[in-house]
Amino acid sequence: MHHVVYTIFGATGDLSYRKLMPAFYNLFSRGLVKDTAIFLALGRRDWTRDEYLAEIEPWVRKFARFPVSDASFAAFAAHIDYLQIDFVDSTEYQRLFAYYDEKHWRDGEPTRYLFYFSVAPRFFPVIADNLLNTGCLRGECRVIIEKPFGSNLDEAREITNKLSAAFGMKQIYHIDHYLGKEMVQNISTLRHNNAVFRAAWDRHSIDSVQISALEEIDIGSRGAYYDETGALKDMIRGHLFQILTIVAMEDVENIDSPEFQQSQEDLLLALRAPDDDIGSQLVLGQYEGYRDTKEVADNSNTETYAALRVWIDNERWRGVPFYLRSGKALKERKTFVTINFRKNGDVGTADRLHIEIQPQEGIGLSFIIKKPGSRSETTEVNMNFCQSCNLEAHSNTPEAYERLLFAAYEGQREYFTPWQQIVSSWKWAHELRVKRDAAGMVPELYARGSWGPATAEELLALSGRSWVNETETLT
Amino acid sequence: MHHVVYTIFGATGDLSYRKLMPAFYNLFSRGLVKDTAIFLALGRRDWTRDEYLAEIEPWVRKFARFPVSDASFAAFAAHIDYLQIDFVDSTEYQRLFAYYDEKHWRDGEPTRYLFYFSVAPRFFPVIADNLLNTGCLRGECRVIIEKPFGSNLDEAREITNKLSAAFGMKQIYHIDHYLGKEMVQNISTLRHNNAVFRAAWDRHSIDSVQISALEEIDIGSRGAYYDETGALKDMIRGHLFQILTIVAMEDVENIDSPEFQQSQEDLLLALRAPDDDIGSQLVLGQYEGYRDTKEVADNSNTETYAALRVWIDNERWRGVPFYLRSGKALKERKTFVTINFRKNGDVGTADRLHIEIQPQEGIGLSFIIKKPGSRSETTEVNMNFCQSCNLEAHSNTPEAYERLLFAAYEGQREYFTPWQQIVSSWKWAHELRVKRDAAGMVPELYARGSWGPATAEELLALSGRSWVNETETLT
Repeated sequence: MHHVVYTIFGATGDLSYRKLMPAFYNLFSRGLVKDTAIFLALGRRDWTRDEYLAEIEPWVRKFARFPVSDASFAAFAAHIDYLQIDFVDSTEYQRLFAYYDEKHWRDGEPTRYLFYFSVAPRFFPVIADNLLNTGCLRGECRVIIEKPFGSNLDEAREITNKLSAAFGMKQIYHIDHYLGKEMVQNISTLRHNNAVFRAAWDRHSIDSVQISALEEIDIGSRGAYYDETGALKDMIRGHLFQILTIVAMEDVENIDSPEFQQSQEDLLLALRAPDDDIGSQLVLGQYEGYRDTKEVADNSNTETYAALRVWIDNERWRGVPFYLRSGKALKERKTFVTINFRKNGDVGTADRLHIEIQPQEGIGLSFIIKKPGSRSETTEVNMNFCQSCNLEAHSNTPEAYERLLFAAYEGQREYFTPWQQIVSSWKWAHELRVKRDAAGMVPELYARGSWGPATAEELLALSGRSWVNETETLT
Repeated sequence: MHHVVYTIFGATGDLSYRKLMPAFYNLFSRGLVKDTAIFLALGRRDWTRDEYLAEIEPWVRKFARFPVSDASFAAFAAHIDYLQIDFVDSTEYQRLFAYYDEKHWRDGEPTRYLFYFSVAPRFFPVIADNLLNTGCLRGECRVIIEKPFGSNLDEAREITNKLSAAFGMKQIYHIDHYLGKEMVQNISTLRHNNAVFRAAWDRHSIDSVQISALEEIDIGSRGAYYDETGALKDMIRGHLFQILTIVAMEDVENIDSPEFQQSQEDLLLALRAPDDDIGSQLVLGQYEGYRDTKEVADNSNTETYAALRVWIDNERWRGVPFYLRSGKALKERKTFVTINFRKNGDVGTADRLHIEIQPQEGIGLSFIIKKPGSRSETTEVNMNFCQSCNLEAHSNTPEAYERLLFAAYEGQREYFTPWQQIVSSWKWAHELRVKRDAAGMVPELYARGSWGPATAEELLALSGRSWVNETETLT
């Protein structure tokens, strides 16, 4: 293992509390950081290190996947430092550099500096400019940035160019934590290694595909961020397109395969451009009361729900609709893929594969058997495999951020989204945006705790299909 | 419902006790026999009706799938009569005809006479000759006969011709009770209605197929019958070929489909003739101590175990070996089909479908996932569906004989083996017999409670395969 300093810009934010610090704790618990490792939290708040530790401790206790005792937290906390920095002020960085200098090890081993930009994208360039003078010259710097990477493609490109100029493109890690999720990675393995899925994975056997990322929570305290973003940019373009490409790409062995990322990109390029008749392809929703959220505009037309039908114009998928949806304040928290297989002939029902990404991890197969004792009537039954229900499997499964933070440390770029994919998906999303604006589309209200707006159902009902909401519980 | 008389020749035999009487009780419990129905037990023993009832009661209590109370048994027993008859003596039949005359209803409704020949095949013709004078002239006669229908094809043909002359070919029901088993019937439905199986059901996706009918019990008191028969004739040619044809036939919707039986026949005709090098295709075994069984020859070379590899020379299956095996005194009682799918490339493992026919009824899918937390290692996991574990499904599932006795009453010939299939399978078995005799093949001894003779393992090991013995318990 190498010396490593993980530096978090925006260490007092929601992501740091819920995801990054618990993930660091997990890595620490697994012995995946050297005893010289530092988790350096940067924030604008005037806190001491102890105050910061007191702040994060309950979050780590709540969200870490390993047990947290007073002793283990103390051992973990010994790796954490807190520096108060106003990161838009260049003069402040001197204290940061002084810190690195002081901590720079002189045993001849290089240090890896990982910078996590957990701040609004508009701050990325100024941080990058200032970091050019860090200890990277004596080690290796990697920058991890989160979607949406900017508010549109032009801005994302500008930011990326600046980061690239500062660090080199190979040092920029665009994180999409869905790619770190066990079952998202498992989709390739399932498809590649099992003939029952491999042989049926095309338009001859599949009627339609649904990708659903449903959330029960509402926007809560994230109004300022969310109202500028919306479901399409927050979830669909990144996370759901990530899943879409892995479900629909040509067969590759796994995420480590050299052709994995190119196959994703090929798939994005095969997406049919958004319809002019945007209403037949896109449904937007906003939950009742969203406009009352703190830091949300009173007349906001930001969508908290989006449902989308896309076509993939290639040999494998011609004619198979892919339905994507994501929303807040819905009835259940559940992220899953539904593969609806084709009926054999015009009557009866067909089998259906359920790939659950969260809250459980596993798969379920609904299939058709003869109704017991009947002559030729059929009935649908279900069998499933719940990986996360198995304690040993569960304890061996890193949480997505844990996996990806370590992957960044290891330089495993295959776990991060290549810039070209971001460009391609954003181009598509931009076209959709243009057509949506041209149509003057505004989100439809939906009740909290529902499955979303009624028109989302119509999007599928047009072709005699319906969303799969109630899925068999994995056991 | 119609008036019906089920007449059992050989009513004091093992089959009547274990299967037929419990099946009649089940039909009675389900209200599937009219209140005028008669179960007429014929035997050579000098018993009264009450003595016969006392004899069968414990068997019915043990093997019926519905609860048996004193009252319900009494109500069932009211339908049972016992006649002592030496069925090779023509003069004795007068008492039988007198019985039918006495019981013949005069309400204008015809009676269905179902004759179950639960006796050695050599007695079939003499019974048939004598039955020509029964009340069939005033009703409808159907004859149900069991494998092996004779000791070879010529004899079976001769017997069938005589029966056919007496009753007409359409009245002869060749019973193979495996065709009455829920999961055997379900194979067609599984294949037809589920794209994941349908799309993978050929040589492109399937590496090999195993059909195993393993029995824990030994020959017991059935030495006289068994020593003349052996595993090949007792199990493989009939029951296992039945399963083989349903697994391998072209896709049809279900057993009711008009093309079902023709598709089975087509499959039998596509079987490649037995190899000259019979040792590479066939393994015979005899469990240790078999020759000490009552009524078994001291130097018997009858096989109590047989394992067989067959090739199917058609487009769907060219190059896919089908392995069949059956034996007595083995480690477990279990009848199941294993579909071994092809690996994707040369390395790793592949998925596997387990279709369990007994003791449980259901399916299991072993499949490959990413090893939790690893980068690209894979591991095999399992999910399964146990139909018979579900009480409601179980209570709706007729036992095989129950289903088939009722099917014969209903005239559902699709549940019985067409004569042409018996001819085709027997021709193949005869060729095998000839080559086996030419090679002077004798069975290899195997230990009781083992999985059979060691060479059976070599039969598969030659091509790098192995028998699947330990299957996941269906739950």
